[in-house]
Amino acid sequence: MSRVYNFGAGPSTIPLEVLKEAQANLVDFDGNGLSIMEASHRSAMYDRVHNEAIELIRELYMVPDDYSVLFLQGGASMQFAMVPMNLYMGGKVEYADTGVWSQKAIKEATIQGIEPTIVASSKENGYRNIPKVEFGDDADYCHITSNNTIYGTQYKEFPQTKAPLVVDASSDIFSYLVDWSRVDMLYAGAQKNAGPSGVTIVIIKNSLLDRAKDTIPTMLRYKTHADANSLYNTPPTFGIYMLNLTMKWLKSKGGIEAISKINQQKANLLYDAIDSSNGFYVAHADKESRSLMNVSFNIKDGDAELEVKLVKATQDAGMIGLKGHRSVGGLRASIYNAMSIDGVETLVELMEDFADQNR
Amino acid sequence: MSRVYNFGAGPSTIPLEVLKEAQANLVDFDGNGLSIMEASHRSAMYDRVHNEAIELIRELYMVPDDYSVLFLQGGASMQFAMVPMNLYMGGKVEYADTGVWSQKAIKEATIQGIEPTIVASSKENGYRNIPKVEFGDDADYCHITSNNTIYGTQYKEFPQTKAPLVVDASSDIFSYLVDWSRVDMLYAGAQKNAGPSGVTIVIIKNSLLDRAKDTIPTMLRYKTHADANSLYNTPPTFGIYMLNLTMKWLKSKGGIEAISKINQQKANLLYDAIDSSNGFYVAHADKESRSLMNVSFNIKDGDAELEVKLVKATQDAGMIGLKGHRSVGGLRASIYNAMSIDGVETLVELMEDFADQNR
Repeated sequence: MSRVYNFGAGPSTIPLEVLKEAQANLVDFDGNGLSIMEASHRSAMYDRVHNEAIELIRELYMVPDDYSVLFLQGGASMQFAMVPMNLYMGGKVEYADTGVWSQKAIKEATIQGIEPTIVASSKENGYRNIPKVEFGDDADYCHITSNNTIYGTQYKEFPQTKAPLVVDASSDIFSYLVDWSRVDMLYAGAQKNAGPSGVTIVIIKNSLLDRAKDTIPTMLRYKTHADANSLYNTPPTFGIYMLNLTMKWLKSKGGIEAISKINQQKANLLYDAIDSSNGFYVAHADKESRSLMNVSFNIKDGDAELEVKLVKATQDAGMIGLKGHRSVGGLRASIYNAMSIDGVETLVELMEDFADQNR
Repeated sequence: MSRVYNFGAGPSTIPLEVLKEAQANLVDFDGNGLSIMEASHRSAMYDRVHNEAIELIRELYMVPDDYSVLFLQGGASMQFAMVPMNLYMGGKVEYADTGVWSQKAIKEATIQGIEPTIVASSKENGYRNIPKVEFGDDADYCHITSNNTIYGTQYKEFPQTKAPLVVDASSDIFSYLVDWSRVDMLYAGAQKNAGPSGVTIVIIKNSLLDRAKDTIPTMLRYKTHADANSLYNTPPTFGIYMLNLTMKWLKSKGGIEAISKINQQKANLLYDAIDSSNGFYVAHADKESRSLMNVSFNIKDGDAELEVKLVKATQDAGMIGLKGHRSVGGLRASIYNAMSIDGVETLVELMEDFADQNR
């Protein structure tokens, strides 16, 4: 079969060039006579890959010098627990609630016996927008989810806070440049914009590293991994290698500012198709909160039968992963960094034809 | 360069057939038009890989029906913390100390405010043997490290316990059949006998799953992952795919009983070379505790200069990873399931020539 356009929410499409490079080197990495997967995490061969990945993130994402870039495991779900474990100091913790993933983050603080303050929520309107978020000045930390895969909403600007701001950027990391003056910690699973699942990227201001108490398990302290350059124990070496290749691909595309413009273009194509459909398609998110990564939409009057038919039509045309999340139904087009304009244009064309035929 | 013989302690050699199969399918998995890395963890395509990996482990390792097979992240280091989190009930916990990894496991219990009882230790003699281990009957759990990579020691038989026995089998999982009547939980990182790093295998008796309190973070409870068939959140899908292929390879070799005989043969070749060297080579471990996975040895009188020369000679002959751990020096040949008899014979030949020339 020829290559599909993969609009899945994650794990998601990886640049073809990256896959081909990994394939060419899979059995014999750069003529070393073994796969990168087989290399010791203490070897010179792996060390170069590891450190280059960190340097590429620093360079492309413009990470300030007083932040550490860590490679952990367990995904954002593990970070929901590690954030309060490491940053809570007995005071207030504040969360903005923009959907399922925010809720899960809040729940993990609660499990640890903390009573988080929810400063804002768009639950009442079905999480169709990013609410106005105002954090207090004296919290141990404040937490937001920058992009919400299910509802297709995204912050256009991070709130300015006095307290440390923690951002779950799982679904939009590396898709635009971050204003680090507003962000004290940012985390993301790699499986949307940075490679395969199994690697978690944490970028944290060094001044926050010392908060964790000695009663926290070694593996769950950010300081452990910062002190050891993410080599305290065996890291997921192949995943980090794929992340390295993905960062090189991103650099070859002109970096994050360049990709952010393409991301805007791709999103415009889709939202324009929705907005110009005379109400045949309806975006789930309010206009001012629309995500550039996940375009969630329904067919007029939530016509489930037509939605199923459209999903089927996309599959027949070589596009996968477009079925919407069960909580909002409809369709969802995830258009992360690695989704090409071609892919989006192909989808838009089909959507327009489908609307014409089924109006 | 042609393929090296990789004697590294981990991440370590992977069967060439497995690497080639992964390579062939890396860009287009079984004609689906995408890589397995790009597939949603909720897709039928991935689901088959995931469940087949679990079934293969159950079949090959003869896991009883009342045990769950889990795929987690964070390696054995994370298990050192998760074991007491999940199994401690306020009573006694008992550990046997057979080296650095046992010590790390013990430390993580201590960090959680538990005072573990060390029922046996071979620290005094440089961890050259597995001591006689007798656990009490009323502990919440007992813990052993089945194989010790650094010192080259290994249990020949697991202790019989009344209390639940937890086995860190990171470096010898799948290398021999386990007597499950003696084991209540077993864990291992995949990167020695089961694939690349980034996947942790946990096999746990279901009756132990309910011990964990609600105050333990969701991701750190075994029950979370058992209830969700290790799909509570996005698992390390590519690593599990590689584990799947490695299990298929193991099956094609006749399964675990067959490979355990080959492992014995490989170890015999090396220990015979050491024992018949008239004292030129000295194994670190006492005879009755010798590991079939890691053969640690020195050159007579701990001649560091000659040891460096031998390591260099192995490298020149296309063998890597033989430098011993700094704490015992010398050399270490890790001969996991995927190391061929050819590889061991090549090493033995070189060792014999080297001894003749440098006696």
